[in-house]
Amino acid sequence: MTSQNVVVLGTGAWGTTFSQVLADAGLSVTMWGRNQAVVEFINEGENPTYLPGIELSEQIRATTDIGEAMATDPVMVVVAVPSYAVAETVSQANLASIDAHIVSLVKGIDLETYHTMVHVIAESAGISEDRIAALSGPNLSREIAQRQPAAAAIASSSFDTAKKVAQLCHTHYFRCYVSTDVIGCEIAGVAKNVIAMAIGAAEGMGLGANTRATLISRGLAEITRLGIAMGAKPGTFSGLAGVGDLIATCSSKLSRNYSLGFHLGQGRTLKDSLSRLPGVAEGARSAKPILQLANSLDVDMPITRGVVAVLHEGATAEQMGEMLLSRPQKTDGWEIELLD
Amino acid sequence: MTSQNVVVLGTGAWGTTFSQVLADAGLSVTMWGRNQAVVEFINEGENPTYLPGIELSEQIRATTDIGEAMATDPVMVVVAVPSYAVAETVSQANLASIDAHIVSLVKGIDLETYHTMVHVIAESAGISEDRIAALSGPNLSREIAQRQPAAAAIASSSFDTAKKVAQLCHTHYFRCYVSTDVIGCEIAGVAKNVIAMAIGAAEGMGLGANTRATLISRGLAEITRLGIAMGAKPGTFSGLAGVGDLIATCSSKLSRNYSLGFHLGQGRTLKDSLSRLPGVAEGARSAKPILQLANSLDVDMPITRGVVAVLHEGATAEQMGEMLLSRPQKTDGWEIELLD
Repeated sequence: MTSQNVVVLGTGAWGTTFSQVLADAGLSVTMWGRNQAVVEFINEGENPTYLPGIELSEQIRATTDIGEAMATDPVMVVVAVPSYAVAETVSQANLASIDAHIVSLVKGIDLETYHTMVHVIAESAGISEDRIAALSGPNLSREIAQRQPAAAAIASSSFDTAKKVAQLCHTHYFRCYVSTDVIGCEIAGVAKNVIAMAIGAAEGMGLGANTRATLISRGLAEITRLGIAMGAKPGTFSGLAGVGDLIATCSSKLSRNYSLGFHLGQGRTLKDSLSRLPGVAEGARSAKPILQLANSLDVDMPITRGVVAVLHEGATAEQMGEMLLSRPQKTDGWEIELLD
Repeated sequence: MTSQNVVVLGTGAWGTTFSQVLADAGLSVTMWGRNQAVVEFINEGENPTYLPGIELSEQIRATTDIGEAMATDPVMVVVAVPSYAVAETVSQANLASIDAHIVSLVKGIDLETYHTMVHVIAESAGISEDRIAALSGPNLSREIAQRQPAAAAIASSSFDTAKKVAQLCHTHYFRCYVSTDVIGCEIAGVAKNVIAMAIGAAEGMGLGANTRATLISRGLAEITRLGIAMGAKPGTFSGLAGVGDLIATCSSKLSRNYSLGFHLGQGRTLKDSLSRLPGVAEGARSAKPILQLANSLDVDMPITRGVVAVLHEGATAEQMGEMLLSRPQKTDGWEIELLD
């Protein structure tokens, strides 16, 4: 076998889809996951749990043995487990013992340190951040699995790493752009889930396209403010990993974050709304640490604050809407703000 | 009557809707239009041609006599006619003889000089640009006419003008932000119509949310490049007048620009597609001058170039898609671009 080996850690929808992209790019893929049944299904050519109806490439195989996966001498290791499992998984993978580039598909923030995933991976694996890239963009799994055209940003503190990863991932339908703004790409990926909840809530309340577009642009503005305070480049937020990812997430009725907001907007309680989701909404987990991080940096994030009020302070979606959309008119100066 | 008078030039959907916003803001509105039947309908409380089913405020009246409208001693004059009619209309309105602030709702570019509307108004009316503001944002007429929450940017080279106009236009459902980046707000408003055509075409071809989000973010990137080359502020393009307006336009099946693209994407000829529109698609008119302007400034606008190829060079939507979305893989370097 002359093709190069890669490992994908995680067997969810995005990890499985991305494995298919890598197989189409001519690589031999070994996926690792904890769930025996899912692993067996993948080896039979489909992942019916997370990606039903998509026939997987024969270049993809899966195992529950992480040592066996890592023994394939991979040129690249893709991290695609939920954010809470990243530290443990990369420790087990023993990444310090190999030379491979590492790619993070994970969008999350550590609840205590507020570190994003590239930092968490580097620290847990005991490796340098310049070996790691974050991949982010408007990437709904199902459409990419159907080989519809898409694009992503690949960001690493090392331009060489980003370029190498982009070369490995590139196919005729998956277009890769490189960037060195890691924190910008990562924080956009985390914070957009919270904005998606607010947009879901507005649509659940029956509001239309102007409100949606307003929330996207004002949401983007608050994410950008946070990113800049953390050292990110403003341009990242108007790119694929910023507005691109935000729009795709808000367009998908399959997004758990959007759906959670939608249920709340329709007047359901938080408990009822959460019970209707097929799994954890990452935005519900990230909202509070993002707001705390923003507060610590003196950054105003009114939409995120509204979502936190609903998640943690018993506010209704309607009260959030009032907070956001119809601030009171003042006779002595009205409500005027200078755009950034 | 103690309320202040304003004049709205134009009786289309947006001019009529904005008149309603102004009436709700406590102003007495005189609309002017050429079409006797439309004017009479407005005076009877509805504009069935452009805004059917919306009951208009009693604070709105209309006339076909521009002199009569201007004789109301307006504190503000709103320009809401098609771009090709702006120069003639503002000349007739004799704006140099009064002190009123002028607001442009028009999104267009002069086919020969490439000037945007604030400049055209100033020159045609013989007044200073600091009396004029451009209003732009995610503002689909019908939703605002239904008094759904919305927001807009109001940009003037004079901060005082922008602030004064924002105060006059502000209602509990229409939120105004001020800016001094006139060229940024205006060029975003013009160029977004061309991107909306490309997105319509992609959706007409059956492509999904990733493609849509990718075209929005790469479209925004090329609009931003053009704007920066013209002296605009980058932040404008990630705001209400930039990404906000772009998303709202691309979300509306009622948008003529989106619809024109959609018909083309479904494989119809340009002639057939144009014949299906209820009026002129401003993007079809603007695409070529925008591309010429970009070329003269050495700015790359691949999506706009693709649209021009379809409109003026006989390319099919499918060929445009191939140009844009699946550039060939190269064995000696692959296709990698550094994000801005």
